[in-house]
Amino acid sequence: MTESSTPTMQDALLALQRYWTERGCMIMQPFNTEVGAGTANPATMLRVLGPEPWHVGYVEPSVRPDDARYGENPNRLQTHTQFQVILKPDPGNPQELYLGSLEALGVDTEAHDIRFVEDNWASPALGAWGLGWEVWLDGLEISQFTYFQQAGGLVLDPVSVEITYGIERIIMALQGVEHFKDIQYSDGVSYGEIFGQSEYEMSRYYLDDADIEATHRMFDTSAAEAGRLLDLRLPSPAYVHVLKCSHMFNVLDARGAISTTERAKAFGQMRGLTRRVAQLWAERREELGHPLGVVEATAPADDVVDFPTVSEPATLLFEIGLEELPHADVSTMADSVRDSLESKLSGTRLAHGEINAHATPRRIIVQVANVAPAEPDAERTVRGPKAAAAFGEDGTPTKAAQGFAGKHGVSPEELSRVEVDGTEHVVVVRTDEGRTAPVVLAELLAQLVSELRADKNMRWRDPKLSFSRPVRWLLALLGDTPLPVAVSSLRSGTTTRVHRTAAEPEVQVASADGYVAFLARHGIVADAADRRRTIVAAATELAAGVRGTVDFAGEAGLVDEVTNLVEQPNAILGGFDERYLELPEQILTTVMRKHQRYLPVRGESGLLPHFVAVANGDCDTDLVREGNESVLRARYEDAAFFWRADLKRKPEELREGLHRLTFEERLGSMADRADRIARVAVSLGATTGLSGEDQKTVARAGELAKFDLASQMVVELSGLAGTMAREYALRSGETPAVATALVEMEQPRGAGDTLPESTPGAVLALADRFDLLASLFAIGANPTGSSDPFGLRRAAGGVVTILRATPAAGAVTLRAGLEAASAEVAVQGSTLSDEALAEAHDFVIRRYEQQLLDADHEHRLVQAVLPLADAPAVADATLAELEKRIDDEDFAALVAVIQRARRIVPEGTAPSYDADVLTDQAERDLHSEVAAVSGRLSGAASLAEFLSIAAPLVAPVNRFFDEVMVMAEDPALRAARLGLLATITALADDYLDWRAL
Amino acid sequence: MTESSTPTMQDALLALQRYWTERGCMIMQPFNTEVGAGTANPATMLRVLGPEPWHVGYVEPSVRPDDARYGENPNRLQTHTQFQVILKPDPGNPQELYLGSLEALGVDTEAHDIRFVEDNWASPALGAWGLGWEVWLDGLEISQFTYFQQAGGLVLDPVSVEITYGIERIIMALQGVEHFKDIQYSDGVSYGEIFGQSEYEMSRYYLDDADIEATHRMFDTSAAEAGRLLDLRLPSPAYVHVLKCSHMFNVLDARGAISTTERAKAFGQMRGLTRRVAQLWAERREELGHPLGVVEATAPADDVVDFPTVSEPATLLFEIGLEELPHADVSTMADSVRDSLESKLSGTRLAHGEINAHATPRRIIVQVANVAPAEPDAERTVRGPKAAAAFGEDGTPTKAAQGFAGKHGVSPEELSRVEVDGTEHVVVVRTDEGRTAPVVLAELLAQLVSELRADKNMRWRDPKLSFSRPVRWLLALLGDTPLPVAVSSLRSGTTTRVHRTAAEPEVQVASADGYVAFLARHGIVADAADRRRTIVAAATELAAGVRGTVDFAGEAGLVDEVTNLVEQPNAILGGFDERYLELPEQILTTVMRKHQRYLPVRGESGLLPHFVAVANGDCDTDLVREGNESVLRARYEDAAFFWRADLKRKPEELREGLHRLTFEERLGSMADRADRIARVAVSLGATTGLSGEDQKTVARAGELAKFDLASQMVVELSGLAGTMAREYALRSGETPAVATALVEMEQPRGAGDTLPESTPGAVLALADRFDLLASLFAIGANPTGSSDPFGLRRAAGGVVTILRATPAAGAVTLRAGLEAASAEVAVQGSTLSDEALAEAHDFVIRRYEQQLLDADHEHRLVQAVLPLADAPAVADATLAELEKRIDDEDFAALVAVIQRARRIVPEGTAPSYDADVLTDQAERDLHSEVAAVSGRLSGAASLAEFLSIAAPLVAPVNRFFDEVMVMAEDPALRAARLGLLATITALADDYLDWRAL
Repeated sequence: MTESSTPTMQDALLALQRYWTERGCMIMQPFNTEVGAGTANPATMLRVLGPEPWHVGYVEPSVRPDDARYGENPNRLQTHTQFQVILKPDPGNPQELYLGSLEALGVDTEAHDIRFVEDNWASPALGAWGLGWEVWLDGLEISQFTYFQQAGGLVLDPVSVEITYGIERIIMALQGVEHFKDIQYSDGVSYGEIFGQSEYEMSRYYLDDADIEATHRMFDTSAAEAGRLLDLRLPSPAYVHVLKCSHMFNVLDARGAISTTERAKAFGQMRGLTRRVAQLWAERREELGHPLGVVEATAPADDVVDFPTVSEPATLLFEIGLEELPHADVSTMADSVRDSLESKLSGTRLAHGEINAHATPRRIIVQVANVAPAEPDAERTVRGPKAAAAFGEDGTPTKAAQGFAGKHGVSPEELSRVEVDGTEHVVVVRTDEGRTAPVVLAELLAQLVSELRADKNMRWRDPKLSFSRPVRWLLALLGDTPLPVAVSSLRSGTTTRVHRTAAEPEVQVASADGYVAFLARHGIVADAADRRRTIVAAATELAAGVRGTVDFAGEAGLVDEVTNLVEQPNAILGGFDERYLELPEQILTTVMRKHQRYLPVRGESGLLPHFVAVANGDCDTDLVREGNESVLRARYEDAAFFWRADLKRKPEELREGLHRLTFEERLGSMADRADRIARVAVSLGATTGLSGEDQKTVARAGELAKFDLASQMVVELSGLAGTMAREYALRSGETPAVATALVEMEQPRGAGDTLPESTPGAVLALADRFDLLASLFAIGANPTGSSDPFGLRRAAGGVVTILRATPAAGAVTLRAGLEAASAEVAVQGSTLSDEALAEAHDFVIRRYEQQLLDADHEHRLVQAVLPLADAPAVADATLAELEKRIDDEDFAALVAVIQRARRIVPEGTAPSYDADVLTDQAERDLHSEVAAVSGRLSGAASLAEFLSIAAPLVAPVNRFFDEVMVMAEDPALRAARLGLLATITALADDYLDWRAL
Repeated sequence: MTESSTPTMQDALLALQRYWTERGCMIMQPFNTEVGAGTANPATMLRVLGPEPWHVGYVEPSVRPDDARYGENPNRLQTHTQFQVILKPDPGNPQELYLGSLEALGVDTEAHDIRFVEDNWASPALGAWGLGWEVWLDGLEISQFTYFQQAGGLVLDPVSVEITYGIERIIMALQGVEHFKDIQYSDGVSYGEIFGQSEYEMSRYYLDDADIEATHRMFDTSAAEAGRLLDLRLPSPAYVHVLKCSHMFNVLDARGAISTTERAKAFGQMRGLTRRVAQLWAERREELGHPLGVVEATAPADDVVDFPTVSEPATLLFEIGLEELPHADVSTMADSVRDSLESKLSGTRLAHGEINAHATPRRIIVQVANVAPAEPDAERTVRGPKAAAAFGEDGTPTKAAQGFAGKHGVSPEELSRVEVDGTEHVVVVRTDEGRTAPVVLAELLAQLVSELRADKNMRWRDPKLSFSRPVRWLLALLGDTPLPVAVSSLRSGTTTRVHRTAAEPEVQVASADGYVAFLARHGIVADAADRRRTIVAAATELAAGVRGTVDFAGEAGLVDEVTNLVEQPNAILGGFDERYLELPEQILTTVMRKHQRYLPVRGESGLLPHFVAVANGDCDTDLVREGNESVLRARYEDAAFFWRADLKRKPEELREGLHRLTFEERLGSMADRADRIARVAVSLGATTGLSGEDQKTVARAGELAKFDLASQMVVELSGLAGTMAREYALRSGETPAVATALVEMEQPRGAGDTLPESTPGAVLALADRFDLLASLFAIGANPTGSSDPFGLRRAAGGVVTILRATPAAGAVTLRAGLEAASAEVAVQGSTLSDEALAEAHDFVIRRYEQQLLDADHEHRLVQAVLPLADAPAVADATLAELEKRIDDEDFAALVAVIQRARRIVPEGTAPSYDADVLTDQAERDLHSEVAAVSGRLSGAASLAEFLSIAAPLVAPVNRFFDEVMVMAEDPALRAARLGLLATITALADDYLDWRAL
């Protein structure tokens, strides 16, 4: 882009206004109370509701208190400028309109790598969600593009397209400046000259100086006003107050003054109010008779009536043209569509050859070889009345036969006879004429499209379709013959769309054969495996060029993802300043992978200052490289900023910051929680018999527990909690053991995550989770339904996983852990009642049970070992033993006798008896054996031991049952016999729940 | 304007953005918290401070809660759209730029009557003021145009030009629609369709449903936050909170929840905060090194060095070209400039003829006939040393003479001798060469311009000038010769500017002679008397055309004003719908006169539905008439809306509304105050001995006192308080006497205003004011310095004026009135202490004193009667008598003896004595005379009576002093003699303060 065509920020805002008004949008004004995004402006949030059309564009200075950085961070501003566009209804080509607007801004869309990368938007506070993308310009997110599906809890019909431009980012990229302050706002005036002061001062307000109590009060006041105004049926002023609530909440959040409970409560309040606003607004618009009119539904395509004729077997090509699918859908859709088509074809008589399918972000292609021109005709036998009822004794057709024949248009004479299940019936033999391939395929492919579904589906302008992203075109050819397919408003043609930046973005396809090669000639690699190979080869070569390698095994998921983000991989090697290598590798790679989908490049001694980005199709490689490098630099600059800021403070100082983070109002601050964790860890450490060194580690790590939650890095990138604790601890001189314990106490983060390896780490991790469980159950904040704001399910799962995997921690039982945590909670004033403790205990056990079932253990065996689950490792061992033995005859015999005993012994029978009363030989023998087994069992811990010790009981028990009448008339004798059996079941009950077997 | 060129509102906003960006303005965004005007946006309010340049334009949705009308009123909106432009520094031609923007909006400025009508803007809450205009489009105010002089209490340097467009009004006029809802916002979408709902709902919120307590709380919270943030030196967030305060205040005001004290307190708070914000902002910008640079002062014009030569006497023409002067300045400036020039010329030796001056809104012209080409030379004698010291005995010059001669460039021989005050001195006779007329005039006219001053003066881009409005050009000719005059940045030329819409707005002037005729040929009537005659003649003729007349005598002030609002009067007859005649005449004429400067047209039986508007110069008469009619219709529609709404409620119901108007928080509501007034009036009525009929009138009017303050009309047009009470009372069936009393109780509204004529009216008016004084002194809210928010000075003045003017009320004394009011205040819980009562009493007396002094009564006489001022009418009579007698010898003799007695009698001597002790004849005679006078005086009320009764005391007193030694050695005798004299002074003291004479 030449210097002269680079727009100032003001030019850009005017250009967007001009572009969109020329396309029928109205210009609205930013809202006159603080909003976090253009979406919150009633010109979006309320206008997307209901059936009225609405096309607007407007600037929105968007206030994000937690992005405040005193104007020091080059890329973060407490107020940034959005340009917001709403197209309601979806015009059918919003992506193309959007790309046109980039051209209007002076973006050379051919030279740059512009991508639509899955981004599903949801705002719980607004009760809103939609599917769409973030738009990348050389790796930089410059816009959000969303098909709004719901707002204020209401399903949207018609759907609105929302496009949100991040103006500062776009302008920085276009002007090639690295700090927002250097943006040319207008001729000769920089952004910093105008807004620098307010960035600093508003940052001070949001981060340091807003009065927390006053802000809380304003939140409450506005929440109450909103509710009252809703009761008065005034959605407009009510919504203003909802927005004020939202801003106050954001201020409190930036001030670090929002606890988890408060967050949940505030979100609940705001969501509830927004829903009421939306509902009421929709009602009011209806009462007003929809002043702006009503959007008419998109007309369906004409039905197909003229089918072509085909005379030879031919290849079927069917392409479903899409706006960019999420990569996960690209992965699954080829198979899914092929299977669906296969199954549908199998329901017809159409002969065909192999079915192949491919998917890229913009198309699903299915090809069927050798499709017959038509179905063969088929004979079909229709059964009529029994022969006996069909003809009179004289052989004349009865009324029944006449009726049946008439119904099928034959004379009674033409009926034949067939024996069915031993009875003779009359039948008609009918010939079903085969349909032509076009007739069969038109119907079947239409169905295929209308049945397309992904994990998350959306609606757009096509009223009868629902899929992951909009279907925009259909291409269908049978050999060289166009095949008409009509579904919803779409009608198939013979053009496809190639790269949007191609000289001719739409091209005619002459034949179904060789379509993959045809696409390849237009720069599109239809086959995912081909794309993946290309990427691996190119990345390998690029990395080798800087004496590096890419860990393709480690990055397999990322490579898969990248493969399905492009139609034509164009790997580009980029670099970053070596000085960022001072940052912990995990930060660098997290940013590369999660934010940018770059492949890290490694050398012999660690990460190299390089990465491989994969662009889509041809572009100006240097330009795109520079762009991607600049994005990464911005992100690393951000991280480095936090890193340096955090390193200025010792862990102890950061730990002090936890006092300002409320954990839960009844449970005190995060510092209080960290204190409890430390004490519980020490107590559990004693149980597990830690070494002196380990005890010291637990004590020290306990003192610092969670300190990194107060670091800027973790506030920003919460996924690095623990990781940063380790890094900061190491750098401030803590021992490696302490540093490790600090990161391990956060593990596992979820199912399948790494577990603590060190015992101190495991002990701290357990203490963390026991505290979470005990404290929240103490205040009755148990998870209900799908609501689990504190992640108690995950915590319980973590406890179980650690105890199962960590031998050293095995001495800790769930009950002991919960009781130790409960004692600390009690010290701080909340009490875990016996009942609540039991609930918490049961809650954890349930997680264990679920883990076992998820691992496909047999239900009855799981039930059998659950009584042992207070020590999950023990239950695990028992279960393993059980599974080994379950088909063993000896085991079966033992189970049988134990169950036999249990069946006869009434519930509550004491496991004791007066042996002197026993008289029969069988019972006396049994008594001896029981006494012997009982003696040998003392100290036996495992099921295996029990089984080998208890095996000798089988024969005597069986004899006892054969020879002895348990229910003797003499009460004393009966009691002794029952006591004897009860003793046996009691011995067994320590090892299993035998009833479950 | 053709239909096709009519812009939509969106077109207009885009056109203004385009127009101003093309002229170097930046586009900013509306502010993201509610503001009442674009001025409040920091992009104006803060950016006009300090030396940095700033050129911006932006849209500002401006929230005016008290303009909320549920969307029902065609012209009032709770949120209207401003387009705001700031030009800093003044570019020198802002009016021309502004007119260009109207053309850009599609306004045909030649066809319309566009005027700049004085409007001096001040916002106490922002500590800001400026001078400028409202811009009229055919009588419709479409913009505010202000030269900002101060903001946040700081003097602005450079001055900023602020232009504020009222977009809805402009668009309604351009689109010819009569209701804002009918504005075409964009193609096919009306304003009402978009914003109608929110107008209704936000109106409900502002007028009916905002929670008062919550809003108060938010005000207090934001005020506290603002203060705290200022302490932290953060002006940006502090200002945001000031704006929130301001909005909350406006909401409370619209809800009718702001009392007078609260208003004063809130304004004080907001003003104080704004000043601190401004001060701090300016400091912070300086600390930041003024990032946007510093405006350089406008360069002065080059000094005049080449003066033309003139050989013959010639006419001087000097024209000072201006932006539109206020009409009052036009009236005075011709004389003022002529006098100034005359005086300046008299300080020179330049011969000249008659001086004439004229003024129009855009020019001050001064013409001097027969200006000589140059001053004559003049001889001047310079005195040197005494002759005795100048020459030695031998006649040779001394050193002193040599020095003197040398200093004046002559040889000692050339010195002459002159006798001065009897002493001979040496002198030099010098010839002062006469300067040429151009040299003299250039200096003198430059002075004239730099000394121009009006009542209110402003600064603009010319650093050395200060005047009512900017001086933009100078024209100076001496005969046909251009006369160079340079002052500040201005340099005179030979062009003048005629109508801005003329084909050639700037024309060359060839000669000073015949300039008035020259201007007339360009459509400009320079002479005010000519303009006035034209207006009277045209208006008379137009009114006659509808069988009406204009009351030129009654409207003299208005005609004068209109005369000076135009350069070329173009009277146009307009009409309005007869149905508005149902409104009280005073409403109709108030609107015509005060808002529109239209001359009302009267028929035989009252007002006719016509008016005469006076446009400036040529225009499309029909278009301009329609425009003016439409403006008046809008204003009448507004008034009719209030009128109808108010008439739906009985006065009693409206009276109930006073409970919602807080008067002063410690003094209860306005209803409480009205109750007190009613009771005080009844009590005063008893004092004045009202007739039974009058008593009933006072009682009933008291019940309704102030009820119209709750009417919409008075809320809107507060100047109609009382008037509307009368109108509404009459229409609801109250007696004319009650209606009259209700209007009279508000009189006088200020010094010189009409007084109550009826006794009930006077009694109520007194009660009103006594209550105001007693109640506010009771709570210590005395006026201090220039602060008198409750108008107590006016109230006290009113009490005095009524008591002086109304014989029937004369029986009411100030003390009795204040005590009666005080008793009612006490009933409601506030107590007027004796001290406070004395203060209040003294406060009223001071107003009386001031009235007397203002009326040029002699100070000592005023002091003499002040002791009687508790009954001002009595004091008035005494003063009159005193002024009659003051030069009378008998009176002087009496004064002398009384003063002689007073001088000898110690302070505190009782006026009693033991007559038996007195022995000398003179004292015994005096005793008899005193006893006789004393007896005759009992019951004597006036000073005249006293003087005639007391006259016989003169001779005995004088004899007493001649013959008797007062200070006798015998204490008893001395006491008796002093007591005798004290008795005399005591008798006199009831009538005057004799010491003052």
